[in-house]
Amino acid sequence: MRNIKLIIEYHGKSFNGWQKQLKELNIQGEIERAIEELTGEKIDLISSGRTDAGVHSLGQTANFKTNSNIPIEKFAIAINSKLKKSIVIKSAEEVNERFHSRYSAKSKKYRYTINNSSMGTAIYREIEYHFPLKLDIKRMQKAIKYFEGEHDFAGFKASGTSGKNSIRTIYKAQVIEYGDRIYIELTGNGFLYNMIRIISGTLIDVGIGKILPEEIPEIIKSKDRKRAGKTLAAHGLCLIEVKY
Amino acid sequence: MRNIKLIIEYHGKSFNGWQKQLKELNIQGEIERAIEELTGEKIDLISSGRTDAGVHSLGQTANFKTNSNIPIEKFAIAINSKLKKSIVIKSAEEVNERFHSRYSAKSKKYRYTINNSSMGTAIYREIEYHFPLKLDIKRMQKAIKYFEGEHDFAGFKASGTSGKNSIRTIYKAQVIEYGDRIYIELTGNGFLYNMIRIISGTLIDVGIGKILPEEIPEIIKSKDRKRAGKTLAAHGLCLIEVKY
Repeated sequence: MRNIKLIIEYHGKSFNGWQKQLKELNIQGEIERAIEELTGEKIDLISSGRTDAGVHSLGQTANFKTNSNIPIEKFAIAINSKLKKSIVIKSAEEVNERFHSRYSAKSKKYRYTINNSSMGTAIYREIEYHFPLKLDIKRMQKAIKYFEGEHDFAGFKASGTSGKNSIRTIYKAQVIEYGDRIYIELTGNGFLYNMIRIISGTLIDVGIGKILPEEIPEIIKSKDRKRAGKTLAAHGLCLIEVKY
Repeated sequence: MRNIKLIIEYHGKSFNGWQKQLKELNIQGEIERAIEELTGEKIDLISSGRTDAGVHSLGQTANFKTNSNIPIEKFAIAINSKLKKSIVIKSAEEVNERFHSRYSAKSKKYRYTINNSSMGTAIYREIEYHFPLKLDIKRMQKAIKYFEGEHDFAGFKASGTSGKNSIRTIYKAQVIEYGDRIYIELTGNGFLYNMIRIISGTLIDVGIGKILPEEIPEIIKSKDRKRAGKTLAAHGLCLIEVKY
């Protein structure tokens, strides 16, 4: 069987997250339906990992096995023709049979976008989180560096999520200023449920002076969800790239 | 009476353009309604000029006269509280009584955004025009320079629009590459109906090799709408800034 790797952009607003569910519209289910319409086969689409309801993607990666003989250079456009406009297959590539979108992934990069203008944005309101108080970006840049490296992020996951291994490695963590926007960019070997949105909320607490940058190591060590910041809204988050 | 100048961002999709109409939702009418709810006064909102249905704005400027005594620093947030989220008053400023958004304007800057990736975009599909064939940006950059200066743009306006003076001056014209995106940026003393969308369509013809850059001066001189390119879709266009 052929193994096809897809790179997928989506606007999270219209869906109840990536993962297949019985009733609510979801991205995985939509793409599986499109591929079935195209090939006549029921396929299992394996992604690099779920994204939550409302989260966007510029580079989600997923693969599936197929007996279809559609030429690889036609695959993306053919699937797109069966999809809603809020999902776009950016590319399709034939990979070897052992490639697995989740197990083969080396790193993932996410971006959280804060609109820090006083009045917010009309055009970008579905992809930027508006925070009207002026944030101290230098402090946020200092603080985010403490998240780099291997840590137990038990205090940075949604409370109530099951207690598996919460050790993750963040390879690179940056706060970037771009006009009125602030990008929080994190690249790591994996992220816990809500982890990036909680780190971003904690960085907002740093930006308003509620937390000092130097307190971050202790907050991480405490593994206490209550010491970290709020979980920011999903619509500011975007999965940028998965590396293999 | 106080004269209040507003800078206005809007997402064009939800409206049938700037100008007030009886039946269809429009930006001018929405803001006038919001100000009336706030101040109790029926006001006339004067803009720098209309934008067409579907066109976006980051910097439309408009002014109105009022007897209200709302402090100027509260005006923007107060109007925003009465508006749909697809319109945001970015700022409000008190200006002298002779300021007129249209007559006082010195220049306007517009941006047309082309998404030149082969598969297009899900996240930005409402603000970028997708053109899948690879465009030759160097040629487009050469061609756009011929639009700078004072010209009779009679061939670059919607056919059927009334035959007033069609001489306009373009101060600066640029084609900028940014990843898969191409920005066409034009700053001028004014633009005819559909003029930027027709210039952008003509530049696409240059980008695919149908028109040579050197042909642009002759096409302008011909004043023949049929020799210029297509009128590109409204949703790629955004009014960036009005200078006074």
